[in-house]
Amino acid sequence: MLIERLALIGVGLIGGSLAAALREHGAVRQVVGCARRSETLQAAQYLGLIDEGQTDPIAAVAGADMVLIAVPMGAYRELFARLKDHWPAQAVVTDAGSTKGSALSDARAVLGAPPANFVPGHPIAGTERSGPAAARADLFRHRRVILTPAPETDPAAVAAVTRMWEQVGASVTAMEARHHDEVLALTSHLPHVVAYQLIDTLAALDVKREVFAYAAGGLKDLTRIASSNPKMWRDIMAANADAIVDALSAYIDNLGQVRDALRAGDMDTVGAGFERAKQARDRWIYTAEPD
Amino acid sequence: MLIERLALIGVGLIGGSLAAALREHGAVRQVVGCARRSETLQAAQYLGLIDEGQTDPIAAVAGADMVLIAVPMGAYRELFARLKDHWPAQAVVTDAGSTKGSALSDARAVLGAPPANFVPGHPIAGTERSGPAAARADLFRHRRVILTPAPETDPAAVAAVTRMWEQVGASVTAMEARHHDEVLALTSHLPHVVAYQLIDTLAALDVKREVFAYAAGGLKDLTRIASSNPKMWRDIMAANADAIVDALSAYIDNLGQVRDALRAGDMDTVGAGFERAKQARDRWIYTAEPD
Repeated sequence: MLIERLALIGVGLIGGSLAAALREHGAVRQVVGCARRSETLQAAQYLGLIDEGQTDPIAAVAGADMVLIAVPMGAYRELFARLKDHWPAQAVVTDAGSTKGSALSDARAVLGAPPANFVPGHPIAGTERSGPAAARADLFRHRRVILTPAPETDPAAVAAVTRMWEQVGASVTAMEARHHDEVLALTSHLPHVVAYQLIDTLAALDVKREVFAYAAGGLKDLTRIASSNPKMWRDIMAANADAIVDALSAYIDNLGQVRDALRAGDMDTVGAGFERAKQARDRWIYTAEPD
Repeated sequence: MLIERLALIGVGLIGGSLAAALREHGAVRQVVGCARRSETLQAAQYLGLIDEGQTDPIAAVAGADMVLIAVPMGAYRELFARLKDHWPAQAVVTDAGSTKGSALSDARAVLGAPPANFVPGHPIAGTERSGPAAARADLFRHRRVILTPAPETDPAAVAAVTRMWEQVGASVTAMEARHHDEVLALTSHLPHVVAYQLIDTLAALDVKREVFAYAAGGLKDLTRIASSNPKMWRDIMAANADAIVDALSAYIDNLGQVRDALRAGDMDTVGAGFERAKQARDRWIYTAEPD
């Protein structure tokens, strides 16, 4: 499949990496990028990610046969509103947002119904870095992409988006948007809260200087994702709050049980949890597909 | 400084790595290792970490001029009791345990007082792996070692241990044992609870298969230390329970506040915590010494 003209609404880590990957595979002829700030477009052009820059999404999607929406979740409604009367019916439109229920409800709220050519999607890939300079052609290799088509979605559009992600090395699965959001609350959104709030807890202490001076690789790796873009993650939290509250409650309860056991000197309970965790993690890591 | 005969009580990651590092720097003539299981000693000998293996600590410390105790915290009392009538007065004795208050109180309980030649110490280095095969000669390079001498400790012994760790690339600081335990509860012990219990929380869910199937690099890095030896970490939790309970309480309170804010739709509070955390972490990572 050759994409004639790919429109990237958002040329950060995800949009930039898709452009780089499709170019590397000779799977795209022309890439137009859209960003609010012209500095971002200049950077993306300088890095060879896009051929053309537009600050207006209407101009960006004109003539595109594939559109990727890769903006923060909080920008979806405004973007849909802007595109409403210029919806690119000629293209397949997909997105890369971390929450899919909100992507569909935003589309319903603004556009009346999810357009048949809109395929909600989520590449499970990323780093704590953001912006076009963080783009990597191999970002999606051996990664998973989840598509969450609505009843209204055209199966041919789903097939086109599937082929696009497969071309850059990802494996593609489909599921219900609600189920996606429940699973991602656990695998991605909760871990970000865990990491951000661990650093926030430590940084609030009187001994914070010493804490960071004596911290080693464990804390560094554990909190890597706390260097992620806080505005982007605030949007994700807002867009999937209910599922994240449930996940966070389960975690707080678990931590509370360990605290109670530690207080009571019940080291068998503490040790049993550690044993279960090590077994579960080792099984996960050593049986997982390569990445 | 040349160590004539180093006795390692425990030839796992820490003991094995010290032997490898001292050998690489030509700073030790002979290494005797002590382990309960002869298979461990054979592995350490095969790997070139030790010259001689002993299953009895009394035999291991005989004739040593430097002794490193590198066994789990839960094994200290039994070891001190075994060595009580054969304490190596001719040597400098140090340890690598993660909790220093318990090392001193175990010495007081069993030996009456901490011997003048015993320098409690803690190299802030490690990986989630354990055993002699995980040993690395560069494990302590650019790492910190904290010594927590008691009033009884001979300053000359402190100086000898300091030189030993500096020879393998570490920088050495001294502080009170209680202060060490408070700081390490925050920088190391709490993060291990965070990682173990996050995996334990996820593994207890009905959707656990999907959770691990769709988890990405963020969760993997965050929970790396949950693959650490659970028995060793259970011992550390028992030995520093009060400080860990305090640290865990601060963290649970912080998470609870985020949950309340998410429930209330108060995204400014959520976003402000993420901003503070990113700033604190980036400042820590980008101003820290190399490691």
